[in-house]
Amino acid sequence: MNKGKTRVVAEPSLPQIVITREFAAPSDLLFRAYTDPDLLVQWLGPRRMTMIVDRYDVRHGGTWRYVHREADGTEYGFHGVFHGTPSLDGIVQTFEFEAVPGHVSLDSVTFEVLDDRTTLLRMNSVFQSVADRDAMIQSGMEQGVDEGLDRLDELIARLVAGR
Amino acid sequence: MNKGKTRVVAEPSLPQIVITREFAAPSDLLFRAYTDPDLLVQWLGPRRMTMIVDRYDVRHGGTWRYVHREADGTEYGFHGVFHGTPSLDGIVQTFEFEAVPGHVSLDSVTFEVLDDRTTLLRMNSVFQSVADRDAMIQSGMEQGVDEGLDRLDELIARLVAGR
Repeated sequence: MNKGKTRVVAEPSLPQIVITREFAAPSDLLFRAYTDPDLLVQWLGPRRMTMIVDRYDVRHGGTWRYVHREADGTEYGFHGVFHGTPSLDGIVQTFEFEAVPGHVSLDSVTFEVLDDRTTLLRMNSVFQSVADRDAMIQSGMEQGVDEGLDRLDELIARLVAGR
Repeated sequence: MNKGKTRVVAEPSLPQIVITREFAAPSDLLFRAYTDPDLLVQWLGPRRMTMIVDRYDVRHGGTWRYVHREADGTEYGFHGVFHGTPSLDGIVQTFEFEAVPGHVSLDSVTFEVLDDRTTLLRMNSVFQSVADRDAMIQSGMEQGVDEGLDRLDELIARLVAGR
């Protein structure tokens, strides 16, 4: 299996980030990796962090919250709300980093079936301003997401092998 | 009391609409007009429509849904979810027009106190794409919002007079 490549598009004038990556997996496995907290903690975010899911209520109006913890105990909290019922058609949710309260993005994830075992993951985030988007980019988000998607690739490979 | 003027900014390349308008009212009255369904139905949307609130659960993760009904019975449904606890600091919510499912915006409303009896209302909507934003503009949204804000102005005048 070729390792996928993360593509990040963040045009200068747009309050938006679009991230795409192909995975050697059927779409339902990717959906599970996004919605099952036991799988989510195995891939979301940088390798050096431990992820703790506080709430993950996968339904319309369901709230979610998780924490990324550094080895030294420093914690970064994130929370939001699901809009619509998450399904293979996609997941829509709000997203707020608790270190900068009041700055919210709207994140959508879709799982485009390319063939039986190839899925194009597409993450679309829109921010309340271009400044908010730029702050997110400058936080090193791109590297964190890329590392997370590498881990997702590894998790998917284990799940596919286990089927 | 001078009638306020609605200002709508929708730059060509941005998936965003910003609407501002001054109201001759303290911010808490405007907040009530946004969060009390009995007041909401008196102003939100065009005059020719009847508004019916189906759900309006004003809390983090609370879902909302309302319908605008034409005289001929045609109904337009809208729904979303509140992100964060609505307060005088602002209201953040998702918004979806049920006639075009799957197209969601993130709407924020803030109430900036200019003086004891003047508040600047600011509505910021970001869309998942510029195309989605353009479709919203082309739906006649601007005129509908302006008419709604005229009605809000009238409601506020009645509430202020009643204090």
